[in-house]
Amino acid sequence: MRNFAWTIRKSSYILKDRWITVRADSCEMPSGQTIEPFYVLEYPAWVNVVALTADDDVILVRQYRHGLQETILGLPSGTVEPEDASPLAAAKRELREETGYASDSFMESGRLSANPATHTNLTYCYVATDVQPITVPRMDDTEPIELVVMPLQAVFEQAVSGKLPQSLHVGSLFLALVALDRLHLT
Amino acid sequence: MRNFAWTIRKSSYILKDRWITVRADSCEMPSGQTIEPFYVLEYPAWVNVVALTADDDVILVRQYRHGLQETILGLPSGTVEPEDASPLAAAKRELREETGYASDSFMESGRLSANPATHTNLTYCYVATDVQPITVPRMDDTEPIELVVMPLQAVFEQAVSGKLPQSLHVGSLFLALVALDRLHLT
Repeated sequence: MRNFAWTIRKSSYILKDRWITVRADSCEMPSGQTIEPFYVLEYPAWVNVVALTADDDVILVRQYRHGLQETILGLPSGTVEPEDASPLAAAKRELREETGYASDSFMESGRLSANPATHTNLTYCYVATDVQPITVPRMDDTEPIELVVMPLQAVFEQAVSGKLPQSLHVGSLFLALVALDRLHLT
Repeated sequence: MRNFAWTIRKSSYILKDRWITVRADSCEMPSGQTIEPFYVLEYPAWVNVVALTADDDVILVRQYRHGLQETILGLPSGTVEPEDASPLAAAKRELREETGYASDSFMESGRLSANPATHTNLTYCYVATDVQPITVPRMDDTEPIELVVMPLQAVFEQAVSGKLPQSLHVGSLFLALVALDRLHLT
């Protein structure tokens, strides 16, 4: 395997705000050539959850997403906050806060990157089984959320037909179904 | 369905460079509350290709990705350039340039977003069958690429075990296998 890694010679922050951190790196390639600036987006770890009830329903959320300027279906998801003990704890908190559902059966199904060329972080993907409603979803005026409970087969069809466009969520659904031995390659 | 959409009241560009465009929006939510600034990342459409040979091998590339600072496996992929007649044309071009492979059998398997909250663009996912080597991959010093030809079953296992971490690629692999009727939910 050839060494393709760049060496960072210099680095500075261009933009730091609540939801975005842009870093500009001056990089040297193995060929000696310089790339500058190369912008990377620094984020904390993210989490998402494929949450299944005992009846094979999936707990989803419908939210406005301003990048695409569309209100779309997605998995319960969020950011690992400093007060979360672990990505798993963050996943349990996000599921509870966004949907009111909880479970004792969480399993990590894999880790994905929104874009390894630009994003520094990974998304920890979980599958939770036998989830049950235990509380009322948090009401957050800056992030209104609609709860959607949908049979797994229908969620699969939504993903295939582009109605679940977030790639981290489609990827997580795929990983969850493989982890549950529900998806088979022929 | 409740209306969650934000209205953009003001918009300006914070950063425009070769590989990044950051726009700052001042937005009004349905509740009347203002969010500002909300940063979005403007990109042109992206494409990727699950390219299968007649022998069920997948054509992959190994590249350094500076966000994660790792050299990783991925699908042939890229940006729809102004000179591309369509996303399909861009996908054919990227496959040929990055790997030297081509095919007459391309099918769109779906469209995904790297992150609908921040990214304005979609990624057009394609599956190409009966691909064959027809030329020498382009040598690009700023983006050295290693060609990897791998049986589909092994690629599936790589995706499941985190060795194909780009969510747009895992999502595209999932969509391709469903489109080819090779993946079944039980």
